[in-house]
Amino acid sequence: MRITNLKLTPVAVPDPPLRNSWGVHAPYALRIILELETDEGVTGLSEANGGAALLGELVAAGKAAEGETPWHLERLRVKLRGLPRAWSALEVACLDACARSIGRPVYDLLGGLVRPRVPFASYLFYKYEGENDRWGDVNTPEAMVGEARRFREEYGFTTHKLKGGVLPPDEEVETMRLLREAFPHDRLRIDPNAIWSVETSIRVAKALEPLDIEYLEDPTHGLAGMAAVARQTHIPLSTNMVVNDMADLPMAVEMRAVQVILCDHHYWGGLTGCKRLASVCESFHLGLSMHSNNHLGITLAAMVHLAATTPHLIYACDTHYPWQEEDVIVGGKLRFEDGSLTPPAGPGLGVELDRDQLAKLHENFQRMATRNRDDSAEMLKRDPYYLPFRPRW
Amino acid sequence: MRITNLKLTPVAVPDPPLRNSWGVHAPYALRIILELETDEGVTGLSEANGGAALLGELVAAGKAAEGETPWHLERLRVKLRGLPRAWSALEVACLDACARSIGRPVYDLLGGLVRPRVPFASYLFYKYEGENDRWGDVNTPEAMVGEARRFREEYGFTTHKLKGGVLPPDEEVETMRLLREAFPHDRLRIDPNAIWSVETSIRVAKALEPLDIEYLEDPTHGLAGMAAVARQTHIPLSTNMVVNDMADLPMAVEMRAVQVILCDHHYWGGLTGCKRLASVCESFHLGLSMHSNNHLGITLAAMVHLAATTPHLIYACDTHYPWQEEDVIVGGKLRFEDGSLTPPAGPGLGVELDRDQLAKLHENFQRMATRNRDDSAEMLKRDPYYLPFRPRW
Repeated sequence: MRITNLKLTPVAVPDPPLRNSWGVHAPYALRIILELETDEGVTGLSEANGGAALLGELVAAGKAAEGETPWHLERLRVKLRGLPRAWSALEVACLDACARSIGRPVYDLLGGLVRPRVPFASYLFYKYEGENDRWGDVNTPEAMVGEARRFREEYGFTTHKLKGGVLPPDEEVETMRLLREAFPHDRLRIDPNAIWSVETSIRVAKALEPLDIEYLEDPTHGLAGMAAVARQTHIPLSTNMVVNDMADLPMAVEMRAVQVILCDHHYWGGLTGCKRLASVCESFHLGLSMHSNNHLGITLAAMVHLAATTPHLIYACDTHYPWQEEDVIVGGKLRFEDGSLTPPAGPGLGVELDRDQLAKLHENFQRMATRNRDDSAEMLKRDPYYLPFRPRW
Repeated sequence: MRITNLKLTPVAVPDPPLRNSWGVHAPYALRIILELETDEGVTGLSEANGGAALLGELVAAGKAAEGETPWHLERLRVKLRGLPRAWSALEVACLDACARSIGRPVYDLLGGLVRPRVPFASYLFYKYEGENDRWGDVNTPEAMVGEARRFREEYGFTTHKLKGGVLPPDEEVETMRLLREAFPHDRLRIDPNAIWSVETSIRVAKALEPLDIEYLEDPTHGLAGMAAVARQTHIPLSTNMVVNDMADLPMAVEMRAVQVILCDHHYWGGLTGCKRLASVCESFHLGLSMHSNNHLGITLAAMVHLAATTPHLIYACDTHYPWQEEDVIVGGKLRFEDGSLTPPAGPGLGVELDRDQLAKLHENFQRMATRNRDDSAEMLKRDPYYLPFRPRW
């Protein structure tokens, strides 16, 4: 089986005005759909972040992969070392193609099932009200409890992650306090995307300690900052910002800067890359959780296959999926049950492209003026003096 | 595909009287041949070290694996955590069965080929003369150069590992000096199996430094000892003794005790376990080489599949294989060309059992009085006062 072509389709997916430390989500989230074609008629699917730079990288990676066999992942990994994000996306398509060609689920190529259901977490965002937005305005601690309650009721999530770094820290602590009060037995986490100073991070950590927080994600910027915070709190620090490549691990370990690493197959070298990360985490007593950007059902399926085959991943996975109403897969959006997803049984990732939906979301993309994500530029439309300070508090 | 039975056949393979820091090899080396039977008629092969304890573990592991699918390696790894050596052997049989069932080579389940040929190293032993022994008595530096020359000519090896810790250190340094003189462009390594004190290790390292040694393997005992030696020499220290489990890695890294880890699928959790180790080594800037005990062609095939798919393994692999004249695989012993082996193209490991040879080597085993390896007991037959001191020098 040889790779003959990599077909790339940029899409734009309606997204509510979710707030974060950079600004606010634009009305459309960008993704790129990959179809890896082979000379045996098998096609592997994958999904990448959007943006002009990555699209260019993917074109280059597709050319470099032509004539290669998708089974030779290690060879392709070495060959595409200079294009790590493109390689990450391509790897999933290779695994999907290989697994389809033998009629087995992708998880079997990653070590098989270790859990029948993969638990996910609510991704709680402060937000403005958007067009056709069923979530409304959420910009107070009280409103956030309402949002969490709705996630809990609609999806069954019992772990809740607050995207912090939006309101002043004391208001976010109050939000966490109200969440703890409302859901005394659920697991809570918060992620201000490194917008707090070390001093503020320590102050917030002390305020959160009595609330039994699962982990505090990227309170502050840089390994030295994270290490300084870690020395002052027993709450584990997690990150997807200061450790996002295998090369970052030795210094993170040496500095005791983080306790939990968030994997993301989009930049850790695909699913096998995340398995490599899991090996290090397992060996070095680091926790492992899973990060999410805006994504569609192909990525969600890949996340579930990965989580279902990784013993060390004992945290509920993050996902933006409930925030999107549209998808590109046949049968429409995958459905959570009791906060979890069952790994699609395959073959491959177990999802197929809905051509009509793909065309529709590609048309959205064609109509767009900008082709790159810029949450700060989007925020400038609401606040002409907006600047994404770091630290802001 | 479900596992129905694990068939175990202990064998004894004629072995010359090779010397090491524990004593001397007995006339037979012990191995256990595994046949993992499935309900689809596919059988996976593997090969384990001998010994009554491991045989017992393998019986237990085989029972625990009944009814499981061999694709679910992660599940089996967790389930058999208490029997790591048995799991290591079983894992190879699972991979062989899975790869056979889809008609592909085992290396494709490990990430595909990254090198078409896998280089091996001479394993140079001081030795007594044995029965039907074509190598004769080798107990001086000069005789060792002759042994190395023969390995080089017969097999094409251009990396040579001296099993040290046998003659007084100065004589082993002299051996290395003569080897360097005889083969100025070859790669040399030495492994005294931790029988030197820290002080002797440093003294020897200083004497070896001008000889351009690839690495010095386990000069002394324990992480603290290795770290003390590492601080005093630029020769990389390698080990298969102080780091032989993923749990050993964090402290080894923290203490900067070793620079090269020797993988061995027989105790690192099989081939996927060695891939896990490779991930850590790649990330933490540790070198990766490959260890060998006495073994037959099934293990050799597994070693080649692993090495062929692991980019980070850039050292020639150790192997005892040339010391054995007999094998259990169809077609007789695998043949080195230019010091290398080409990965068998499969399906599976690409080797089949020769039933007559298996029966013959099993008969050897049946005739044996002892069922465990004991090089020191064997040495007592030659020297009634022998004791395996550590350190001896």
